[in-house]
Amino acid sequence: MKKLINEGDKAVDECVEGFLKLNKGTVKRVGDVNAIARREAPIEGKVGIVIGGGAGHEPLFLEFIGEGMADAVAHGDIFAAPSPKVALEATRAADGGEGVLYIYGNYEGDIMNFDMAAEMAESEGIKTETIRVRDDVASAGPENKEERRGISGDLFVIKIAGAKAKTCADLDEVKKTVEKARDNTRSIGIALTSATLPNTGEKTFEIGDDEMEVGMGVHGEPGVERTEIKKAEETTQIMVEKLIEDLPFKKNDEVLALVNSYGATTRLELHIVYNELSKILEKRKIDVYNAEVGAYCTTQEMAGCSITLMKLDEELKRLYNTDVNTPGYKFFKK
Amino acid sequence: MKKLINEGDKAVDECVEGFLKLNKGTVKRVGDVNAIARREAPIEGKVGIVIGGGAGHEPLFLEFIGEGMADAVAHGDIFAAPSPKVALEATRAADGGEGVLYIYGNYEGDIMNFDMAAEMAESEGIKTETIRVRDDVASAGPENKEERRGISGDLFVIKIAGAKAKTCADLDEVKKTVEKARDNTRSIGIALTSATLPNTGEKTFEIGDDEMEVGMGVHGEPGVERTEIKKAEETTQIMVEKLIEDLPFKKNDEVLALVNSYGATTRLELHIVYNELSKILEKRKIDVYNAEVGAYCTTQEMAGCSITLMKLDEELKRLYNTDVNTPGYKFFKK
Repeated sequence: MKKLINEGDKAVDECVEGFLKLNKGTVKRVGDVNAIARREAPIEGKVGIVIGGGAGHEPLFLEFIGEGMADAVAHGDIFAAPSPKVALEATRAADGGEGVLYIYGNYEGDIMNFDMAAEMAESEGIKTETIRVRDDVASAGPENKEERRGISGDLFVIKIAGAKAKTCADLDEVKKTVEKARDNTRSIGIALTSATLPNTGEKTFEIGDDEMEVGMGVHGEPGVERTEIKKAEETTQIMVEKLIEDLPFKKNDEVLALVNSYGATTRLELHIVYNELSKILEKRKIDVYNAEVGAYCTTQEMAGCSITLMKLDEELKRLYNTDVNTPGYKFFKK
Repeated sequence: MKKLINEGDKAVDECVEGFLKLNKGTVKRVGDVNAIARREAPIEGKVGIVIGGGAGHEPLFLEFIGEGMADAVAHGDIFAAPSPKVALEATRAADGGEGVLYIYGNYEGDIMNFDMAAEMAESEGIKTETIRVRDDVASAGPENKEERRGISGDLFVIKIAGAKAKTCADLDEVKKTVEKARDNTRSIGIALTSATLPNTGEKTFEIGDDEMEVGMGVHGEPGVERTEIKKAEETTQIMVEKLIEDLPFKKNDEVLALVNSYGATTRLELHIVYNELSKILEKRKIDVYNAEVGAYCTTQEMAGCSITLMKLDEELKRLYNTDVNTPGYKFFKK
């Protein structure tokens, strides 16, 4: 296995150790588990934002805590949900008296464990609400939106949540806005290579030297189509068409766009894909309000990328412009 | 080739196209070549910082232009120096009357072409000075420092340069400080896998499934030792020992540290390496003033990483705390 680790089953704990040392001025461990909060948490009078999920997708979720994003993270094992105990520790750390909003990807293990944490929190007098991100249009049809998985759309949804919570809106108001952000977000991914799990050394799936898979999930869940590798232009076209027709995004819509690397795909390639994406959106008169390229939701060293679009309204635009200063994502309005 | 590109020989141009669209509010193309400047350039009364080198190492150099870093970049082809014409266009765009400081890696092609640009600039009345980054301790012995290659140390050296230029120091003063930053910086890299060049489809070198190479350069230049893959602890030890004894870094020194991914190496691994690095530095009572982990100087999808240390004094600490807001690197003091 071509990875810089020690023991595979200690990789997540050692990553968290390193993360805590690297960011010692701004984050802290809470409880005796992999629950980490920003130093200032809990912030009185502000809804707490708790995010989490399996490890292995860094910077998501671990590195999205801090100014303008989440208050605490419940960090699981490789591709495995955090336990209810970890989620509860994160909840306690984030609650400043106004309750906590959970944001996580729509996966069975995460749902079960965060729901259990919510019950335990309630018995301690902490109110919680939940938003499950389900942006991956390839994972279920539009008639089964509730079954869709969460992928790179997390970045924008968490950013909006952090910004809304900062306005000191109450829990219902924060939930309502984040729900809108979630429902306005669509993503799709493609994979060119498999990934290796650091804990087991196993590959997530097999794929031929000349193949790519459209709609591949971030844990190697099968996609919708396996084809020969196509050029960036055609690949982007295939991905974006699926996004646009799903919401649907329409002429004169304003959107946020993200071209996200799943791992080994370089920034050179991401910019080429962004160039193709721009051309398609311009032709359809869909206006890019702002865009990001980078590796924000990864699947270890898997080559491939995802594209995310979020439709904006005036509230979402205003919130999006809130500064973010976290270890894994920084945003400063110029 | 498992890359999201169109034609290999257009990859760099299309990347620049995408980059210009993505950052249309903050950067601009100058001349009709791959010279790109921050929108505000030239800034009157400020020494211009011009960086550059071959493409394929993104975000270095292309994405390091903007607030707190460089004024213009001369972007070459894949692993190939920018032409004198491109470097001259970047120079013209960056000169606000106080002259221009060139910062680039110590490679033959870059030296030749930037030197030619400097001559042409001089004939136009633009004063230039040059700092060649040569942080890679594996590329030549301490007695031949002038022959060493530049790798991930570029990040910190360019950051210091941008900060110093912002104080409106004159060209000699900026050069002197950046020279100190350069001379206080040491890096070393390791490679676990090869990289594929997007323009040719060729691999940069061959390496066995159980091998790693210590000291591998960012264009596949041979390193100092090929061994079986070791654990993160031992690998980090090997790398850091070479850095520490070279300067040498001593007890009570304050340093900046960078754990840089060369491509496919994940942030999970980078944090594990940072954890090991912290332990070694703590044991030697070398104090980490600040540190970064991330992919700043890459070699396409090559798995591997580099570690950089820069020894600080009061001036360098003060300058390091200057905010940076560029597409490829953001730094905001909390």
